[in-house]
Amino acid sequence: MDITLNGAAVLLKSVERVLILTHASPDGDTLGSAGALCLALRQLGKHARIMCNDEIPPKYSFMLQNIPDQDFVPEFVVTVDVADLKLLGKDYLEWEDKIDLSIDHHASNRHYAKYNAVIPVAANCENIYSLLAAMEIEMTEDIARCLYTGIITDTGCFRYSNVTPETHIIAANLMEVCPNTAQINLEMFEIKSRNRIALENAALSGISFLADGRCAMTVITREILEKTGTTVADVEGIASMTRNIEGVQIGFLIREKTDGTYKVSCRTCETSDAAELCGLFGGGGHPRAAGFSFAGTLEELFESLKEVSARFITEE
Amino acid sequence: MDITLNGAAVLLKSVERVLILTHASPDGDTLGSAGALCLALRQLGKHARIMCNDEIPPKYSFMLQNIPDQDFVPEFVVTVDVADLKLLGKDYLEWEDKIDLSIDHHASNRHYAKYNAVIPVAANCENIYSLLAAMEIEMTEDIARCLYTGIITDTGCFRYSNVTPETHIIAANLMEVCPNTAQINLEMFEIKSRNRIALENAALSGISFLADGRCAMTVITREILEKTGTTVADVEGIASMTRNIEGVQIGFLIREKTDGTYKVSCRTCETSDAAELCGLFGGGGHPRAAGFSFAGTLEELFESLKEVSARFITEE
Repeated sequence: MDITLNGAAVLLKSVERVLILTHASPDGDTLGSAGALCLALRQLGKHARIMCNDEIPPKYSFMLQNIPDQDFVPEFVVTVDVADLKLLGKDYLEWEDKIDLSIDHHASNRHYAKYNAVIPVAANCENIYSLLAAMEIEMTEDIARCLYTGIITDTGCFRYSNVTPETHIIAANLMEVCPNTAQINLEMFEIKSRNRIALENAALSGISFLADGRCAMTVITREILEKTGTTVADVEGIASMTRNIEGVQIGFLIREKTDGTYKVSCRTCETSDAAELCGLFGGGGHPRAAGFSFAGTLEELFESLKEVSARFITEE
Repeated sequence: MDITLNGAAVLLKSVERVLILTHASPDGDTLGSAGALCLALRQLGKHARIMCNDEIPPKYSFMLQNIPDQDFVPEFVVTVDVADLKLLGKDYLEWEDKIDLSIDHHASNRHYAKYNAVIPVAANCENIYSLLAAMEIEMTEDIARCLYTGIITDTGCFRYSNVTPETHIIAANLMEVCPNTAQINLEMFEIKSRNRIALENAALSGISFLADGRCAMTVITREILEKTGTTVADVEGIASMTRNIEGVQIGFLIREKTDGTYKVSCRTCETSDAAELCGLFGGGGHPRAAGFSFAGTLEELFESLKEVSARFITEE
């Protein structure tokens, strides 16, 4: 059944041994949600621990550094920022019908838990902030650091269109107990590995333009990944760079997969619908960010993109 | 004399024809301050116009699009975000003893005006926000757009250490009347010209590392500027990129000037003092960002930087 965050607070106050599950390939929002909730439950004297099916990326491990492991048999299982049971990763089927509470912000949440508190705010950490207020938790620096990190990673540090006035109000309150947000912002957004810089250079110097510069595309081959010492995870965010070039309305990032086929990511301005464009190739996604797979040659792909994107370009 | 923003509000309400001066090489904060103040004064039925000694960069012109020019003889002159009369640019001496009010946030403000309202907040637009509240101005979308832009450009979109909880509270209030902040953020931070991308590529692919990767440096020659079709203005922000490489504590950007000498920009982590380091070369600045000029050869400069930076590196 669907419940409010106040309802979730009542539930959580009534149990003693809580297991918190994050989604696989964990990001700042799922880990920030889990860290803050775990610290809050422990503040109330309860047992709580976090489980993630994948390794925690070193970038995010600071959020969990003050949460020593606890060994206990859980009586209540909560997922945070997990829209679908499948997103728990390996062995997810074992959790079927075993999730007591899901706290999430994805409108696409599958309501797979006994109790589902799904409120579509910018970051799930905004939900956890409201939940902790309802539970009358004292805001500590450790909790605030988790929540702030989740909020900035899901909003591009307040840059995306999902930000609301409430997002800023929460950030203001978190800064009162966690003033050194600048260091977190630096680590989340500014610092890049040498390999990532080499990959960006390769991607950006190889861009070709179509339609009088209104369409940009670049290819990341397996050879480029190998040469720059990067993996698929390092490619994140590069698709947007093709769209963020002055005058460009549609940007494509073409990545060669290990099987020789191509994964195409498409990013658009407000003038073009990426999901519609990728739909023509059997793919899909959101209006500004979508993708599809392509099994032909690179030349065939170029020709198709040239033809299709011309129809999606707006003349100025 | 020094006055409060409430005092400045009383002064501005008592005059009818106001000239607002921005600093030369105008940025988002000085133009946002000027735009918002001009719109506010006109809302009160007063005459007001903005003067800047340099051309307004196209990137910022949207802030002034709803401010048609007005022709009148001013009776009161205000500077916004101008720490020193010299920063007005050409003919600045003509303004000596002629500035009635200075509204600024730089602690280094020279208090050159008859009345000086200098409050060291993150962005001067925070001061203008408080001033407009004291003047009982109705917040409009046009005013909010100016103030929001000034705040994000001076705080790196809430990333820098100058941000306070109050900065976020003001942003929340501005978003209530100007909800489409995502588009402003995109234009201010994400969109880059092709030439700028080529310049970044040249700068980042030419980086050399010292001290086991704890120091990074790159050179932008006159030839690179020419080849990439960029000017000195395009170099902004590249110095920080050298410091923002994983493991780097000190980053140097060396720019060849037209007279063949070098301008060195230094960016550091909390472990090293950039102002102190640059002081050894006769330069100066802030703890994390400083610079100096160098008249010798590039080889001599490399040797000096290698020697000096080794002393400023922290062993881990």
